[in-house]
Amino acid sequence: FSSQAPITATLFPGDGIGPEIAEAVKKIFKAAGAPIDWDEQYISKTADPRTNSFITRENLDSVLKNRIGLKGPMATPIGKGHRSLNLTLRKELQLYANVRPCFSLPGYKTRYDDVNLVTIRENTEGEYSGLEHEVVPGVVESLKVITRKASTRVAEFAFKYAADNGRKTVTSIHKANIMKMADGLFIKCCREVKEKYPDIEYKEMIVDNACMQLVKDPTQFDVLVMPNLYGDIISDLCAGLIGGLGLTPSGNIGADGLALMEAVHGTAPDIAGKDLANPTALLMSGVMMLRHLELNEHAERIQAAALATIAEGQYLTGDLGGKAKCSEFTKAIIDHL
Amino acid sequence: FSSQAPITATLFPGDGIGPEIAEAVKKIFKAAGAPIDWDEQYISKTADPRTNSFITRENLDSVLKNRIGLKGPMATPIGKGHRSLNLTLRKELQLYANVRPCFSLPGYKTRYDDVNLVTIRENTEGEYSGLEHEVVPGVVESLKVITRKASTRVAEFAFKYAADNGRKTVTSIHKANIMKMADGLFIKCCREVKEKYPDIEYKEMIVDNACMQLVKDPTQFDVLVMPNLYGDIISDLCAGLIGGLGLTPSGNIGADGLALMEAVHGTAPDIAGKDLANPTALLMSGVMMLRHLELNEHAERIQAAALATIAEGQYLTGDLGGKAKCSEFTKAIIDHL
Ligand SMILES: CC(C)[C@H](C(=O)O)[C@@H](O)C(=O)O
Ligand SMILES: CC(C)[C@H](C(=O)O)[C@@H](O)C(=O)O
Repeated sequence: FSSQAPITATLFPGDGIGPEIAEAVKKIFKAAGAPIDWDEQYISKTADPRTNSFITRENLDSVLKNRIGLKGPMATPIGKGHRSLNLTLRKELQLYANVRPCFSLPGYKTRYDDVNLVTIRENTEGEYSGLEHEVVPGVVESLKVITRKASTRVAEFAFKYAADNGRKTVTSIHKANIMKMADGLFIKCCREVKEKYPDIEYKEMIVDNACMQLVKDPTQFDVLVMPNLYGDIISDLCAGLIGGLGLTPSGNIGADGLALMEAVHGTAPDIAGKDLANPTALLMSGVMMLRHLELNEHAERIQAAALATIAEGQYLTGDLGGKAKCSEFTKAIIDHL
Repeated sequence: FSSQAPITATLFPGDGIGPEIAEAVKKIFKAAGAPIDWDEQYISKTADPRTNSFITRENLDSVLKNRIGLKGPMATPIGKGHRSLNLTLRKELQLYANVRPCFSLPGYKTRYDDVNLVTIRENTEGEYSGLEHEVVPGVVESLKVITRKASTRVAEFAFKYAADNGRKTVTSIHKANIMKMADGLFIKCCREVKEKYPDIEYKEMIVDNACMQLVKDPTQFDVLVMPNLYGDIISDLCAGLIGGLGLTPSGNIGADGLALMEAVHGTAPDIAGKDLANPTALLMSGVMMLRHLELNEHAERIQAAALATIAEGQYLTGDLGGKAKCSEFTKAIIDHL
C-alpha cells in the first residue's frame, strides 16, 4: 500500500451502541493501516438556539472543515420541537444525496440471492420540508416540496454515480400519476439529465409497483433515484432483502464532495455497553468513506476482511444469528486483513 | 345452500383483459349458484363535465343504488387533466377504506410462507388530495391532507374489521417522526379508537421500518391501517410477497356498507382478448363481495374451488407459470365447485 499523509475525518460515535461500534471501526482501520486521523465530535446535551438542535456549530464546522465524516447512530432527543439530529446534519450541511449500496453478502443467507443495487435518495426536501399546519381544528396540511434545483442535483449525482461505478441503468421512482406536478417535476429533471448520459439506460417506475417488483425480483434493479420519502422507504425495504440495517452502509453527499457516511440503524439501547453490537453497517460506511477519498486499496482490503468474516460464519453477532461479541467479531476481521 | 332472492350488483368489466375476466367471474358465480344479478356498467368515451372524468353519473348512480359492485381494471384515459377513474370512483362514492387481504396461496410457492395479513388504507385524502401548485418556477408544493374525520373513520373500520374477523392486532403505519402534525393526527385518532377495543392489541410502526419488517418476516403482521400513500405502497409490497396483483382481491368500503370490490392489477393490453388472462384477483374480489353480502357459504365454496385449482397447479395461466387459457382455468374452477 502506498504510504500517504493521513486525512482528518470527523467521527460522531453517537449514542447507545455507537461508541462501541465506532471503537471497532477505529481498531480495524488502524490494523489495516488506513491513513485516517479521527476528529471525534460529541453532540451537545442542550439544544443550540441557532439550529434548534443538539448538533452544535462546532460539530457542523468540523465536517465542513474536514469535508469528510463518519457517523454512528444518534438517539432522538427527548422533548418536543427539536429537529431530528439526522435531519439537522443533512439540512445544515446540504447533504443532498443519500446513497445506499445494497448487495447480498456472500454466505449470509436471506430469501434473496444476488441483490446488487444502489438507492439514491434526495435528502433535503420533499415530504421532509417540516412545513405543516392545522388549517382548522382536525384538518392538517403537510407540504411536500419538490424543486427543479434539488431534483436535478440528485439526478445528476445518480447518473454520474452510475457512470463512475460501471452501472448500466438508472430507474427513477415516483408517483407522478397522482402527484402530477411534484413528482412530475422530479421525473422531468431526471429525463433532462439522462440526455447527458447516452450510455446509461433510463427507466421510470411508480413507487407502489417498484416495491412489489423489489420483493418479487430485486435483481432487475441497478441504480434507483427518488424523492426523499420514497428513498427512505425503499432503502429500508432493500436493506431488509439482504438482512437488515445492521449490514448496510449509507453515505450522505453534499456540494463539492462533502460527505458524511453513516450507519442508519438505531442506537439499540437494550444492548448498549454490553459488547454485543454488530459494527458491520458502520464499518461498511467507513469503507464507503475510504472509497470516497479514493483510498480504494484500503477500502477493498477492509471490505474483503469483513465479508470473509461474515461468510465464515464463526464470529457473527447476535443480530446475525451468532453468539460472538462485538470485540470477537472485530478481532476476526482484523485477523482476516 | 339456502335459496334466496337475487341481489343486484353493479359490474364494471373494465378495459383490456377486464371483459374476459369479468366473463370468467360471471360463469363461476353462475355455476356456484351465487344469487347475484349483474347490472353491467360501461364508462363513457368522453369526459363528463360534472366530474371531469369518464365515469358517468349513471355509473355512479348504479353503485349508489345497488350499494354493492365489482370492478375490473380500467385504462387511464389519454389526454391531460382528467381525473383517474379509480380515484373518481373512490372520491365520488366516498369509498373511504381500501381493504386488501393478503395470504399465501397453498401450493403456489413464493419466497414467503404463511403470509396472512390485511392492509386497510385510507382511501380519500392524504397525498391524494390533488392539491398541487407551482410556487415560483421550479418550486412545486403538493399538499398532503390528513383529517380527524377520515382518520377516525378508517381507524374505526380497521378495529371493527379486526374484531369481526377474529384478528388480534391492528398496527398503524406512519411517519409521525417527520410529519409530526399530519401523521401525528392519524395515529392520535387510531389511539382514540383503540380505547373502544380492549381485546384488540394495538401497535404502531414507522413506514420505512414496516417495509423492512414486511420483507424480513411478514408473519409478524395481522391487520395494518394507514394513510393513503403508505397503503398504496404497502398493499402492493404485500401482494408481491404472495405472488403479485394477479392474485390479490381488494375492496373499497364506504358509508353504510356501500362497497365496490376491485381487481387492482392493470388492463394488460398486450394479452387482452387472447384468452390468456388470470381472473383470480377479480374472482377473489367477487368472493369478498359475497362475504360483504353475508353470502358466506357461496363465498367459501368459490374460494375453495379457486384455491384448489391453483394448488393443483395443472391449469395455471401464464402469469402463474402455467400454460392454461383463462377459459381452461375457469372451467377447472367450475369443476372443483
Ligand atoms: C430517523 C429518521 C429521521 C430517518 C429518516 O426518516 O430519514 C431514518 O429513517 C433514515 O432513513 O435515515
Ligand atoms: C392506479 C392508481 C391511481 C392506484 C392508486 O394509486 O391508488 C393504484 O395504484 C391502486 O393502488 O389502486
